[in-house]
Amino acid sequence: MSNPVLIVGGGPAGLAAAHSLSTVGKPCVIVEKEDRLGGAPILSGYAKLVPTGEWAKDAIGGMVDRVEGSDHVRVVKEATVTKFDGSPGAFQAQLSNGENLQVDAAILCSGFTHFDSVNKPEWGFGMFPDVVTTTQVEQMISSGQGVRCPSDGRKPERVAILLCVGSRDRQIGREWCSKICCTVSANMAMEIREEIPDCHVYIYYMDIRTFGLYETKYYWRSQEEFKVKYIKARIAEVTSNGEKLVVKGEDTLVKRPITIPFDMVVHAIGMDPNVENPTIASTFGIDLEEHGYIGAANRYGAMGETSRPGVYVAGSATGPETIDDSIAQGHAAAMAVLSSLRSAIGETA
Amino acid sequence: MSNPVLIVGGGPAGLAAAHSLSTVGKPCVIVEKEDRLGGAPILSGYAKLVPTGEWAKDAIGGMVDRVEGSDHVRVVKEATVTKFDGSPGAFQAQLSNGENLQVDAAILCSGFTHFDSVNKPEWGFGMFPDVVTTTQVEQMISSGQGVRCPSDGRKPERVAILLCVGSRDRQIGREWCSKICCTVSANMAMEIREEIPDCHVYIYYMDIRTFGLYETKYYWRSQEEFKVKYIKARIAEVTSNGEKLVVKGEDTLVKRPITIPFDMVVHAIGMDPNVENPTIASTFGIDLEEHGYIGAANRYGAMGETSRPGVYVAGSATGPETIDDSIAQGHAAAMAVLSSLRSAIGETA
Repeated sequence: MSNPVLIVGGGPAGLAAAHSLSTVGKPCVIVEKEDRLGGAPILSGYAKLVPTGEWAKDAIGGMVDRVEGSDHVRVVKEATVTKFDGSPGAFQAQLSNGENLQVDAAILCSGFTHFDSVNKPEWGFGMFPDVVTTTQVEQMISSGQGVRCPSDGRKPERVAILLCVGSRDRQIGREWCSKICCTVSANMAMEIREEIPDCHVYIYYMDIRTFGLYETKYYWRSQEEFKVKYIKARIAEVTSNGEKLVVKGEDTLVKRPITIPFDMVVHAIGMDPNVENPTIASTFGIDLEEHGYIGAANRYGAMGETSRPGVYVAGSATGPETIDDSIAQGHAAAMAVLSSLRSAIGETA
Repeated sequence: MSNPVLIVGGGPAGLAAAHSLSTVGKPCVIVEKEDRLGGAPILSGYAKLVPTGEWAKDAIGGMVDRVEGSDHVRVVKEATVTKFDGSPGAFQAQLSNGENLQVDAAILCSGFTHFDSVNKPEWGFGMFPDVVTTTQVEQMISSGQGVRCPSDGRKPERVAILLCVGSRDRQIGREWCSKICCTVSANMAMEIREEIPDCHVYIYYMDIRTFGLYETKYYWRSQEEFKVKYIKARIAEVTSNGEKLVVKGEDTLVKRPITIPFDMVVHAIGMDPNVENPTIASTFGIDLEEHGYIGAANRYGAMGETSRPGVYVAGSATGPETIDDSIAQGHAAAMAVLSSLRSAIGETA
């Protein structure tokens, strides 16, 4: 029981788990496939986070610095786990860099994959340069460049944000809701209006899911303080009239076709299961749930158990998740590991 | 740093926090105002929980048993904290039973208060016996009695579940969304259909917020497998025609008035801030957020900090919350306490 805990993935959940374990002096090893820690908020260059408004590079960057500065955490970058054998308290993990680790337990914090908008071709991404994704707009904002039309660098006068791109869409095999895109989009709409006060911003939605206290802080504030316009619509296609992008669809509240021109169209892209989940599941001998996320088996006894004892999961590896909840789950999974190791010590004593 | 941690409230968040602390041998004291632990799921007699489908008495009851059986956890029931002074690592708490405690830190897991439907009089609660709340239906199911009309004990043939009762309703000062009622109501609709297959169940909604993976498991499953009907509507009033309850409103998709008779109308009641929050805030010297929940100050550095160092918060005390997320936050707040105590030891060493 003196081996470290293996943490797969150094995003918000993994960073939280590592910090929790280090807090009580339990060593851990983060194995991160990219060349730096931070997960999607850092690697994809997110701007200001929901709901704190802190910049991702400060908020998540601070979590990275803390973990990298800890004596109890070892970080192995640009590596993956290729083999995982053994049983709780005595697992052997083989890494892609040839290293072998003895670990007590594993926490999979392997996150999600952003939906690729080319899989929704009728909505114009890849065809028109000014059809972009929320991730691209995050990068425009976080880089300090500002929100500009990629085609010619101009400030957009009219922006449409289309919700549920790669979410709630059975036609393309994505039935789930990605949970946080509504709120992130409302936040983004306000950021655009703040930077370009003359810009009109429309949000096309099916249901607005700014749950809990996000209702006030994002849904109402975006409408009342920032004059963001919401249209409940079924979108048919995004085309161009030569000068402007054109969003065609049906306003489902007034049951009429609507065709509105825009300078920029933003796809609020969803959270797919990590494309590597089949490999991860096979390596770790765990079950995926029906959509391809990593199945979380328990909540009440030990949070984040998978189908294999000693292997835990936290954050958006389990399904679309907010950053806050990913962090909380990372802490909780770390506690579940500690608790299981303590029980095992008790049993063998 | 050898004092216990004070946990206020023994619901899911408090039970998770206590278990986390006990796992690493840190003593804690749960102060619970009621005569038993378990919080809303136990005290209000919830039936099967979202999303596991486990009975509340088993799932949360198991958490209660574990905490009550721990050597590191002391439980003080039917008591509240009346005074709280000092600073992190050396707080003094006075309880309503006269006891004085020295504690290192406090975690407020004081939960929420169910919205009282009498505050929405035009929707018939308190006037017609067969207008009930989701909590009452949970109790009908968990008691084994089954879903019956309170007026005469008959099985309802038609049930309407009205969402957002005490949520998203500025007219009565409740602008927030209660986050989980959509999903709980879809779950309840399926339970009703399972028990009474002939019963028609309608859900009246503004936006369906079955976020994340709940979309498949609750929204689609309730429609396709259980034939639950969803109506997007603005409800005007619930009256009676002498024989049946009548729900009057406007179908906002077809923009037409709709008047439908029902045997039972269920209010999906929201989550108000705990009515005792002003007292709790005053006792602990902490800030409430704009709606009256306990403000959570940090997420990335230390989850669940309040405006006062050494006083933490977790679960639905911070706003409408799911049980799962409350549990995760309880674990996370416990970790934040441990981390802060460790830092303090480091600083004074």
